[in-house]
Amino acid sequence: MSTWDAKIKKVAIVGVGLLGGSMGLAMRAAEFAGPIVGVGRRRKSLADALAVGAVDSVTMDPAEGVVDADLVVLATPVGAFEAILRAARPALKRGALVTDVGSTKQEVVRMGERVLGRGGPFVGSHPMAGAETKGPTYARADLFAGATCIITPTAHTPRGSVRRVEAMWRACGMRTLRMTAAAHDKAVARVSHLPHVLAAVLAQMPTDDELQVAATGYRDVTRMAGGNPEMWRDILVTNPKAVAGAMAALSKRLGRLGKLIESGDAKAIEVFLDAAKKRRDRTIGRRFTERRVAAE
Amino acid sequence: MSTWDAKIKKVAIVGVGLLGGSMGLAMRAAEFAGPIVGVGRRRKSLADALAVGAVDSVTMDPAEGVVDADLVVLATPVGAFEAILRAARPALKRGALVTDVGSTKQEVVRMGERVLGRGGPFVGSHPMAGAETKGPTYARADLFAGATCIITPTAHTPRGSVRRVEAMWRACGMRTLRMTAAAHDKAVARVSHLPHVLAAVLAQMPTDDELQVAATGYRDVTRMAGGNPEMWRDILVTNPKAVAGAMAALSKRLGRLGKLIESGDAKAIEVFLDAAKKRRDRTIGRRFTERRVAAE
Repeated sequence: MSTWDAKIKKVAIVGVGLLGGSMGLAMRAAEFAGPIVGVGRRRKSLADALAVGAVDSVTMDPAEGVVDADLVVLATPVGAFEAILRAARPALKRGALVTDVGSTKQEVVRMGERVLGRGGPFVGSHPMAGAETKGPTYARADLFAGATCIITPTAHTPRGSVRRVEAMWRACGMRTLRMTAAAHDKAVARVSHLPHVLAAVLAQMPTDDELQVAATGYRDVTRMAGGNPEMWRDILVTNPKAVAGAMAALSKRLGRLGKLIESGDAKAIEVFLDAAKKRRDRTIGRRFTERRVAAE
Repeated sequence: MSTWDAKIKKVAIVGVGLLGGSMGLAMRAAEFAGPIVGVGRRRKSLADALAVGAVDSVTMDPAEGVVDADLVVLATPVGAFEAILRAARPALKRGALVTDVGSTKQEVVRMGERVLGRGGPFVGSHPMAGAETKGPTYARADLFAGATCIITPTAHTPRGSVRRVEAMWRACGMRTLRMTAAAHDKAVARVSHLPHVLAAVLAQMPTDDELQVAATGYRDVTRMAGGNPEMWRDILVTNPKAVAGAMAALSKRLGRLGKLIESGDAKAIEVFLDAAKKRRDRTIGRRFTERRVAAE
């Protein structure tokens, strides 16, 4: 039995990478005493997850993995969710909660309700935590500590299920916040997906010669481009409208700024830079500790 | 007499902020034994520069400051250079070298030759080092150590003057690299000025509500927006053509990518992200140590 939810006696984590592995360790740290099953596609990851104590048993078969589980967490790239849920559905226990750690929510939540039924067990989650490292060997019980998890219930999601999923994330050390999937996807398009796209473009723009003048500003602004291409492909493919909207909004702002620069309007440029600095210093800079290095 | 150049017996540093102050400390660390004069506009900065040992005497008058100096370094924001040089010119010693630390070079070098004469004492420099901190109290003798300084001679610059300025930067711990001012400005537009502009736009795009989902990726991508607005205004105003060109090149790439995202071309998106990751990991990520935090 879990310390935060008497109904959760067994957990299945599908995808035992950094996030999935860290969830296993975080639940153990929260004194969850029941079995945790790890489901994965690669023997090496499963073996590593076992070795670090993130899971107690492993299988490559989602249907086998979810048997008797009261909580199922999807922690693979988003693009794999539907196939996993369809494979697991026949074996899913009645009353089991299903949630995920995906970085986009509209398509995921729609798919979850389509495959498992409206008013059914699926509750979308997006824990805003991560690291530059990859794989269960880097899993940490405190990966989620102090960070925010967005929960995206629909009009059909039972309130009790929402509260139970929130309790699980809080047990892992997170602050929880409810949003609609649409509001979530629009917000992350602007603060995460658009920055990632820009980092990826900037990483490919300079020639080798031009890179000789690159300094740490360039290093930091392109850091996100080092993220997992498969994961980010799934993110962009499942949030196309909001990402394209954010790109269009950026282009409009860049166009206006370009005119100021070309016309040499020093005063207007300073006003723009000053507003950016104030916004950055007052609202953004202070919201993060240095400990958590990346998060999508 | 300096250890690296027998002709340099006295130095004047105009602008005693983080860079100017660190130059004083770096020259001392390189066992320069002569007097270092600090010139500035604010009593507080001058007092701080004196207190940390970056300079030996201070004045608010550029003409007074450069008297008898064999090397004059301009370390204020670029926009102040011309007025300082015009004020100092009548007092400048015959044969004195003049260089600067400005982040743009075409306008600066043109101005330097216009005010001091072609084939005269002005040699443009851009030390690619800095930090998030500001002011002489944060000055460090090792601020420049291991970083690159771009030197931008023109067809008129005496080769001996170029070599002497390079020797000074090497004494401060830097690697030196010669480029034309035009090539320099185009390269920094793409690896420094464009990223700064994007950071400043991104810092102002999300609403307060949207910022609730911001994570460390957003923090890093907007970090440059915390830079000094006055310095960055001068950078953008003195490099408008290259910056506008870089913005246009970015918009073109974003437009192409936007089409891939809207059409849901998962394979092409992954190829793009994969190429960005490879470029970032292989060429950019490994070029920087974590010690130097910012540099423009």
